[in-house]
Amino acid sequence: MSNNIILIDCPDEKGLVYNITKIVYDYGLNIISNQEFVDIGSNYFFMRTVVENNGLDQTFKNKLLDVLPEGANVRLASIEKKPIVILATKEPHCLGDLLLKNIHGEIPSDVRAVVSNHDNLQTLANSFNVPFHHISSNGVSREDHEERLKNCIDQYSPDYLVLAKYMRIFTPDFVSSYQNRIINIHHSFLPAFAGASPYKKAYERGVKIIGATSHFVTNDLDEGPIIAQNVIPINHTYTADGMTQAGRDVEKNVLSNALKLVLEEKVFIYKNRTVLFE
Amino acid sequence: MSNNIILIDCPDEKGLVYNITKIVYDYGLNIISNQEFVDIGSNYFFMRTVVENNGLDQTFKNKLLDVLPEGANVRLASIEKKPIVILATKEPHCLGDLLLKNIHGEIPSDVRAVVSNHDNLQTLANSFNVPFHHISSNGVSREDHEERLKNCIDQYSPDYLVLAKYMRIFTPDFVSSYQNRIINIHHSFLPAFAGASPYKKAYERGVKIIGATSHFVTNDLDEGPIIAQNVIPINHTYTADGMTQAGRDVEKNVLSNALKLVLEEKVFIYKNRTVLFE
Amino acid sequence: MSNNIILIDCPDEKGLVYNITKIVYDYGLNIISNQEFVDIGSNYFFMRTVVENNGLDQTFKNKLLDVLPEGANVRLASIEKKPIVILATKEPHCLGDLLLKNIHGEIPSDVRAVVSNHDNLQTLANSFNVPFHHISSNGVSREDHEERLKNCIDQYSPDYLVLAKYMRIFTPDFVSSYQNRIINIHHSFLPAFAGASPYKKAYERGVKIIGATSHFVTNDLDEGPIIAQNVIPINHTYTADGMTQAGRDVEKNVLSNALKLVLEEKVFIYKNRTVLFE
Amino acid sequence: MSNNIILIDCPDEKGLVYNITKIVYDYGLNIISNQEFVDIGSNYFFMRTVVENNGLDQTFKNKLLDVLPEGANVRLASIEKKPIVILATKEPHCLGDLLLKNIHGEIPSDVRAVVSNHDNLQTLANSFNVPFHHISSNGVSREDHEERLKNCIDQYSPDYLVLAKYMRIFTPDFVSSYQNRIINIHHSFLPAFAGASPYKKAYERGVKIIGATSHFVTNDLDEGPIIAQNVIPINHTYTADGMTQAGRDVEKNVLSNALKLVLEEKVFIYKNRTVLFE
Repeated sequence: MSNNIILIDCPDEKGLVYNITKIVYDYGLNIISNQEFVDIGSNYFFMRTVVENNGLDQTFKNKLLDVLPEGANVRLASIEKKPIVILATKEPHCLGDLLLKNIHGEIPSDVRAVVSNHDNLQTLANSFNVPFHHISSNGVSREDHEERLKNCIDQYSPDYLVLAKYMRIFTPDFVSSYQNRIINIHHSFLPAFAGASPYKKAYERGVKIIGATSHFVTNDLDEGPIIAQNVIPINHTYTADGMTQAGRDVEKNVLSNALKLVLEEKVFIYKNRTVLFE
Repeated sequence: MSNNIILIDCPDEKGLVYNITKIVYDYGLNIISNQEFVDIGSNYFFMRTVVENNGLDQTFKNKLLDVLPEGANVRLASIEKKPIVILATKEPHCLGDLLLKNIHGEIPSDVRAVVSNHDNLQTLANSFNVPFHHISSNGVSREDHEERLKNCIDQYSPDYLVLAKYMRIFTPDFVSSYQNRIINIHHSFLPAFAGASPYKKAYERGVKIIGATSHFVTNDLDEGPIIAQNVIPINHTYTADGMTQAGRDVEKNVLSNALKLVLEEKVFIYKNRTVLFE
Repeated sequence: MSNNIILIDCPDEKGLVYNITKIVYDYGLNIISNQEFVDIGSNYFFMRTVVENNGLDQTFKNKLLDVLPEGANVRLASIEKKPIVILATKEPHCLGDLLLKNIHGEIPSDVRAVVSNHDNLQTLANSFNVPFHHISSNGVSREDHEERLKNCIDQYSPDYLVLAKYMRIFTPDFVSSYQNRIINIHHSFLPAFAGASPYKKAYERGVKIIGATSHFVTNDLDEGPIIAQNVIPINHTYTADGMTQAGRDVEKNVLSNALKLVLEEKVFIYKNRTVLFE
Repeated sequence: MSNNIILIDCPDEKGLVYNITKIVYDYGLNIISNQEFVDIGSNYFFMRTVVENNGLDQTFKNKLLDVLPEGANVRLASIEKKPIVILATKEPHCLGDLLLKNIHGEIPSDVRAVVSNHDNLQTLANSFNVPFHHISSNGVSREDHEERLKNCIDQYSPDYLVLAKYMRIFTPDFVSSYQNRIINIHHSFLPAFAGASPYKKAYERGVKIIGATSHFVTNDLDEGPIIAQNVIPINHTYTADGMTQAGRDVEKNVLSNALKLVLEEKVFIYKNRTVLFE
C-alpha cells in the first residue's frame, strides 16, 4: 500500500482546508503539493494533496471523512503503474503511440492486452509482447459481441479501457460496466460538424483548424467529460483524406496526454466536466 | 490605375499556366510572386500573380480572358487602402483593434465610418476621428432598420462591411446587397455548441479550448466561407463569463487577420470555402 | 482597505498550510481559492489565497507572520485598478492595445501617463485622454535623461512602469528605483539570436517560429524573470521586416497578458523566475 | 523511372515561369500543382511542379536546362519510399515514432537500419524487424568510430541519415560525406540558452515555452538550415527533468514532420535556410 495522494471532493464549506490539513499535520505527513478548486456556481470543493510519506490507509481516510460534509468523496491513490486494456479497430497510430510510451515508461500504465474487432493490428501488439485478441463483430449481435469483449477484458482486471480509435458504439449496459473508466479519442473541428462524414463537411466548409478531443465515455455518444484537447492548423490544400491524415498526430498526442493525466490521478469528474490539477 | 495583382479562377485545363504566363511575358511584366492551386475534386484552377509593374488594364484583362476557359473570372487588383465601414453593437475590443490598425497602417484599410445599433462606442470611434452613426433598432421593423443602415453605409461606398461584434442578424435582402463583401467574427468551440448560450454549454461540457472564426456572411447564419480561425487553451477555472472574456483577444486577432487577408487580395471564395494564398 | 488576497512565500516546513488556514479559519474568512506550490529544489513555499471577505489588515498580517518561518513575505492585496505609467518610443501597437484595454476595463489598470523619448505617439495617447510627456534623450546624458524621466514618472506614483516597446536601456540606478516594478516586452526567437539585428539573423537562419517574451526588468538586459511568452509560425516568404510586422500581434498580446497577471496579483518573483498562479 | 516532380532553383529572370511551363506544355504534361517563390533580397527563383504523368527523364531535364540561366539546378523526383538509416543513442521516443510511421506508411521512408553507439535500443528496432547495429565509441578514436559508422551505413545506400537523438558530434569529414543528407532534432528554447545544460538554464530563467528544431546538419553544430519547429507551453511546476520529458512529444513530432517534408520533396536548401513548399 503505497498511497501518497489524497483526492477529496465535497460540497464547499468554511474551514475545509483547515480541517483537512489539520489531520494531515496530526499524522506527521509532509505536503509536497496541494491544489484546491471551488466551483463557484455550485459551491463544490476539490482538493488534491500529495504527501511525501507513503502508506495512507483506511484509518486515515476515515479521519478525513469524519470532518468532511455529508456525501464527500475521499480517494487515496498513487502514481504506480495501473493495468489497462486497449481497444482498437484498424488504425495503428494511437495504439502504436500508447504501446511505445507504455514500454518506455512515459505513461504509468501496464498495458495488459489489446482487443480489436479486426485482426490487422496483431503484429503491432505482438511486436511489443502484448497479448492481442481478435473479437470479430461479424455475424454476432451487439449484445453478444459486447459479452465476449467483457469476458476477454475482465480477465485482465484493467483499471481503465482506452479506446484507441475503436470505431464501434457501446450499449449503455457495456458503458455502465466500466463507469468513468473508458477513455476515448475522437477528431474535433472548429466548429464541429454533427452527424456522418464530419471530415467531408469540414472540408466543404473549408475549416482552417482541426483537432482532437479525449473524453470519458458516457451514454451520450462522444459527449462525455472532456479530459484533453488540441488542434493543428490546416488550409485549403487539404482534402478530406489529407485532413484525416494530418489529424493523426494530434489524436495520438491528445489521447496519450489524457491517459497520462488520468493515471497520474490528476482528474476529477464532476457533472459532465473534468477538473484537472495539472 | 495602380493594379499589379492578377487573380484568376476557372475550370482547370492543360496549359493554363503556360498560356497565362505567356501573356504576362509578352507584356514585359516581371513576376514577383505566383501561386496556383487546383482543387482536385472539382478540377478548378486558382492563380494569384503579383507583378512588379503597375497599371494592368482592361486590354490586358481581355487578352487573358481570350485564352481562358468559358466562365473564367479575372480580377485586377492592388494593395492600396480600400474603404470599409465597420458595424458594431456594444463590445469595443474588435472595433478598437481595427481602428488602431487602421490608423497605424497595419491593415490596408480606410475606415470611413462606424455604425452601431447602440451609442456607447461613439467615444471610441471619435477618438480616432472616425464618424460614428447610431442607428437604433428600437421600435422599427427589421426591414426599416436595414434600410436606414444601407442609406447610411452606402454614402461611404465601402468595398467591405466588417461586423466587429455586430449582434443582429441580417435579412437575405441585406446580405445580397453586399454579396461576398460582409466579414463577420464569432466565437467557436471545439466541438461547437449549436443554438443559444454556447458559452454556457461549452462551460457545462468543460471544454479545454475556445476559439474564433472569421467568415464571409451568407444567408446561412454563421455558415459562410471561413477566412481565418484561431484558438486559445482554457481550463476548469473559467466560468462562462471568463471564457467570453478570454476569447476577446482571439476574436480581435482573427477578425483583423481575416480583414488583412481580404484587403491584401489573397482570398478567393469558392463554393462555401476560401482559397487563401498567404 | 479592500484587500482580500493573501500572498505568502517562505521556506517550506511541515504544517504550513495548516497553520495558515487555521488563522484564516479563526478570522471567519471564507476561502474562495487557494493555490500552493513548493519549489522542490530549494524547498521554498508559495501560497495565494483569495477570501470572500474584504478588509484584511495589518493585525491579520502580523498573526500570519507569527506562525511563519523567519524571512517569510506576506502581502495583502486586491484586484482594484492600480496606477501605471507606460513608456514607449515610436511603435504604437503595444501602447494602443494597452490604452484600449485600460479604457474598457479589460486590465485592472489606471494608466496615469504615457512617456516617450519621441513625440509621434502623442495623438494616440491623447485620443484616450491620457497625458503624454515627450522627454527627448537628444543632447542630454543618460543620467540626466533618466532624472527627467523619474521626475515625470514619480508625480504619478505608479505601482508599475510598463515598457511598451521603449527602445532605450536603463542604468542600474534607474532600475533599482523601480525594483521588480518594470515590465518589458521583447521579440524572441526559437532559437534566440544574441547581439544586434536579431530579426536579420533569424531571417538568415530561416526560423519557422517567432515569439515574444514579457519579463521584469533587471540589470541584466532582457534577462529578468519571465512573466509570459507566446509564438506564431512563420515561413520562408517572410523578410526580416515581414517578421517584425508579424510579431506585433504576439508582442502586444503577451505584454498585456503579462500586465494583467501582475495587476491581478498572480505573480511571485523568485530568484530569476516567476511563479504564476493562473 | 516514376519521376513526376520537377524541382528548379536558379537566379530569377523575366519569363522563367513562361519558359518552363512552355516545355511542360509541349511535352503534354498536366500540371497538378505548381509553386514558385522568389527570394527578393537575392533575386533567386524556386519552383516545384507536380505533373500527372510519370516518367520525366534526362531529355526533359536537358530541355529545361537549355532555357534556364547559368547555374540552374533541376531535380526530377517522386514520392516513392526512399531508403534511410536512423542513428540513435539511448532515448527511444524519436526512434520509436519513426519506426511506427515507417511501418504504417505515414512517411514515405524505407528504414534500412538503426545504428547506435549504445545497445539498449536493439529490442525496439528488432520488434519492427529492422536491423540494429551497435557501434560503440568506447576506446576508439572519433575518426575510427566514424569510419566504422560509415562502413555500416553505406552498405544500406541511404538517401538520408536521420539523427533520432544521436548524442555525438560529427567531424566535418563525416558531415561532408553526407552533404545536405543528415537530418537532426534538438530541443529549443524561447529564448535559447547556449552552452552546456540548456534545460537547467531554461529552468533557472523560468521559461514558459519549450520547443524543438529539426535541421540539416552542417559543420556549425546545431546551426544548419531549419526544416521544422514547434513548441509547447510549460510553467513553474516543471523541473529541468520535467521539461526534458515534456519536450519529447514535440521532438518526435517535429523530427517526423521534417523527415516527411524532405522525403516528399518539398524542401529546398538555400544558403543557411530552407524554402518549403508545403
